[in-house]
Amino acid sequence: MIDKLIDNIKKTNAPIVVGLDPMLSYIPAHILNHAYGEFGETLEGAAEAIWLFNKGIIDATYDLIPAVKPQVAMYEQFGIPGLIAFDKTVKYCKEKGLIVIGDVKRGDIGSTSAAYAVAHLGKVQVGSRKIEVFDEDFATINPYLGSDGIDPFIKVCQEEKKGVFILAKTSNPSSGEFQDKLVDGRPLYELVGEHIATWGKQCMSGKYPYSYIGAVVGATYPEQGKILREIMPHTFILVPGYGAQGGKGKDLAYFFDKEGLGAIINSSRGIIAAYKADQYANFGSEYYADASRQAVLDMRADIAQALG
Amino acid sequence: MIDKLIDNIKKTNAPIVVGLDPMLSYIPAHILNHAYGEFGETLEGAAEAIWLFNKGIIDATYDLIPAVKPQVAMYEQFGIPGLIAFDKTVKYCKEKGLIVIGDVKRGDIGSTSAAYAVAHLGKVQVGSRKIEVFDEDFATINPYLGSDGIDPFIKVCQEEKKGVFILAKTSNPSSGEFQDKLVDGRPLYELVGEHIATWGKQCMSGKYPYSYIGAVVGATYPEQGKILREIMPHTFILVPGYGAQGGKGKDLAYFFDKEGLGAIINSSRGIIAAYKADQYANFGSEYYADASRQAVLDMRADIAQALG
Repeated sequence: MIDKLIDNIKKTNAPIVVGLDPMLSYIPAHILNHAYGEFGETLEGAAEAIWLFNKGIIDATYDLIPAVKPQVAMYEQFGIPGLIAFDKTVKYCKEKGLIVIGDVKRGDIGSTSAAYAVAHLGKVQVGSRKIEVFDEDFATINPYLGSDGIDPFIKVCQEEKKGVFILAKTSNPSSGEFQDKLVDGRPLYELVGEHIATWGKQCMSGKYPYSYIGAVVGATYPEQGKILREIMPHTFILVPGYGAQGGKGKDLAYFFDKEGLGAIINSSRGIIAAYKADQYANFGSEYYADASRQAVLDMRADIAQALG
Repeated sequence: MIDKLIDNIKKTNAPIVVGLDPMLSYIPAHILNHAYGEFGETLEGAAEAIWLFNKGIIDATYDLIPAVKPQVAMYEQFGIPGLIAFDKTVKYCKEKGLIVIGDVKRGDIGSTSAAYAVAHLGKVQVGSRKIEVFDEDFATINPYLGSDGIDPFIKVCQEEKKGVFILAKTSNPSSGEFQDKLVDGRPLYELVGEHIATWGKQCMSGKYPYSYIGAVVGATYPEQGKILREIMPHTFILVPGYGAQGGKGKDLAYFFDKEGLGAIINSSRGIIAAYKADQYANFGSEYYADASRQAVLDMRADIAQALG
């Protein structure tokens, strides 16, 4: 699947993943009114609004982008109806040829970690049948519990030709509270990066020099990204924190290799809620998806400029 | 909610939480056959089997125990039907007066972390309404992303009188890969423990000297538990790893205070799949729930002996 991700990036010339992290406050009134009109102010109503909002953005951008990254928390907060909307979103994006990175940040051990891997990337055994579940292409995972949490994901990735991105250095202001602490003279995130590189060695792509065991490194920490790029030369990096969180195009060059591959930059709010930004306000809420399309085009240009 | 948890522990004289982590391989044939007979070998069939299995165990043990800890991964792997079974299990346990600790190990930042907190402990705003979602009493969370991930949970806990258990030192063999690394001369899990104690200070129970910001420390690491008990004197500790994972009764004393409070010990497989162990094989699969009841009684005696 890492091959298909890289193929998609080359085809679109856009190392961009659109974060489908809908908040109700992002959704235009005409969509909310339609959904609440049908289902009331209920979890079902919220889920329908999210689904319609997502579908608009996907339809307006899928030809420009290689991948999407739905953040499951934004669906989980609407309970079962929300998770049905997540499931529909994943399936619809895959129909459109997009790679789907499930931003689930799961992390547990042994059989529990295996259950999460099956839920998001694999097939669950029920009696004599094996059944696909949420079936994303990649998932994000948390390394705090060590190899016991990672190995079951690697096993499922090998079986299903899927991949993961493991948190190394996250984009948020407080990521340093634990991740930056010095361990044997270097920050914890470097140690995690070394482990990610080692885990990834057994999981190389056939076509490109990249493993399907990737890493998450925040755009807000470009210096750290530069070091991690060196520590993990065959690790594909998922980079959140561009745009709304403060990461700039010029900061991104460090995350890529000399061929301009090796990283994919996420933008969520900056694209899906573009029509709410001054820059795109002229589109108006009715044409929110067109604003998102323009924001993708602008982001692509910003990254192209940064990569020279 | 920490008050109610401690009240329940005192009432039952059992600092025990039953881990409702059903695997299909634990479920007796008569239940599987019934569920598959009705729904086929489908996600719905698996979910029905899990629900019936759980209900049997809850009915057979609820009067002996203060709390249950459903592991959401075991439901999530069966997709939407599995999560409906999770939801039914949570609601049923609460009807029976049990405290429900959602073992979800979520961890993200900012608005995403807030969404998880709302999903599991709070109420989600939909238009003019606030709606309960999965509505567990406590949730487990992962500290790797720092305060940005914890603060939104604390906010919801304050509003809803709920609580969390934050991973400090997990019970698995590889937990040391990162958690044991020395930071300024002490292991990372101690640093995390210090943070948990600090986060918890603003969230003290009214009735007992315990915060509703708790910690997870594995029974398999009693020496570390002893140190963490001292570092976090007002932190309630959720202790996994007893029984099947190797933690013994005598190892548990360190996790408790002098009054025998301050900790709750989880057992999952050792209780819910008791009938599969040699010790309880005489119950037979038809009476699996009675075997679980006996395993709870034996665990209670084991802990009482350990606490002298």
